[in-house]
Amino acid sequence: MKQIFHEIKIKTKGQGLYDFTEHTLGWLKTQKINDGILNINILHTSASLVIQENADSDVLHDLKNFFDKLAPMDNNLYKHTTEGKDDMPAHIKTALTNNQLTLSIKNKQLKLGTWQGLYLFEHRLKEHTRILSHHFIGD
Amino acid sequence: MKQIFHEIKIKTKGQGLYDFTEHTLGWLKTQKINDGILNINILHTSASLVIQENADSDVLHDLKNFFDKLAPMDNNLYKHTTEGKDDMPAHIKTALTNNQLTLSIKNKQLKLGTWQGLYLFEHRLKEHTRILSHHFIGD
Amino acid sequence: MKQIFHEIKIKTKGQGLYDFTEHTLGWLKTQKINDGILNINILHTSASLVIQENADSDVLHDLKNFFDKLAPMDNNLYKHTTEGKDDMPAHIKTALTNNQLTLSIKNKQLKLGTWQGLYLFEHRLKEHTRILSHHFIGD
Repeated sequence: MKQIFHEIKIKTKGQGLYDFTEHTLGWLKTQKINDGILNINILHTSASLVIQENADSDVLHDLKNFFDKLAPMDNNLYKHTTEGKDDMPAHIKTALTNNQLTLSIKNKQLKLGTWQGLYLFEHRLKEHTRILSHHFIGD
Repeated sequence: MKQIFHEIKIKTKGQGLYDFTEHTLGWLKTQKINDGILNINILHTSASLVIQENADSDVLHDLKNFFDKLAPMDNNLYKHTTEGKDDMPAHIKTALTNNQLTLSIKNKQLKLGTWQGLYLFEHRLKEHTRILSHHFIGD
Repeated sequence: MKQIFHEIKIKTKGQGLYDFTEHTLGWLKTQKINDGILNINILHTSASLVIQENADSDVLHDLKNFFDKLAPMDNNLYKHTTEGKDDMPAHIKTALTNNQLTLSIKNKQLKLGTWQGLYLFEHRLKEHTRILSHHFIGD
């Protein structure tokens, strides 16, 4: 059994969901491993990871909208306001979704449903470069 | 170290929490492995996975009720309405809970607390067959 | 490849976020393993796990406050009230966050971002001893 470490960097341009499925799959195809478990961690607390539907982009719009309403960018609601009105809502949205995904790989393919994609969920308003740590353990 | 892949299918009959702990344990007992990590992924984005209390069924009622109020089935709230009033709320509830569980197995037993059970959380109104991909890595 | 099991007990004194990063790192340093995947499960359904910012304690205050408002301690909202007004909200908050974390270890270090810490999120009002099951698989 082998272990491989890798990092993928995603540039984000404001709030929203960014599909990184192809980044991960493209990297997997170049590795000398077929089956294993892939652990992806986002090394930030103001952006998160979700698996969501990749068919209708309206789903992504509605998701972003739902979380914006649930954790509004309103400094009156929070004590932590020094990093901008979007920062504390970003931490809350991260707590409500995921910092990490643990995925099953068989024959170099992600075991995902037909309509599932891997998304980076950016919660900050400005541009960021987000690091997704990949750790593969398998054969 | 070995790897074993398996799928469990759960038939759901509308919204609610379905305990699948025995399905997973029953399968584990038939495998020639004792210790390892079990990664369970649900291959859908309108149903999800949670670990919750298995003692009082009122907990399951209240959970379902809470998520229904948080993400109401009201087409006026969403752009994505083509798959029915329950579909976009289902995606939101999935984002708020989990697509996957990663569990510790010791001596063919799940390391769970006394009151913990594994639940499929169905968010759609109609019947569905849900696939839970199991990937076991261990000895 | 080896597997090691361990339990860390954390005493909590009411609701809030408890940083246990050093407990986990301290244990890792004593183990004869360098690289691997660490699966942490909390064996309870009224307390949960999150990775959050460890720089400004106001973030922890705002997080606790947000979840308290989202799932209020009001017996009129729930059927499950026999274990106290804080119990059903605790189950909901657990469903909204995580029962488990799956982490990447390289050279005995957790692959975490600069501002990330591991937190136990206690949702009950009284003192509790919480068990965090650690399962390490690696070399």
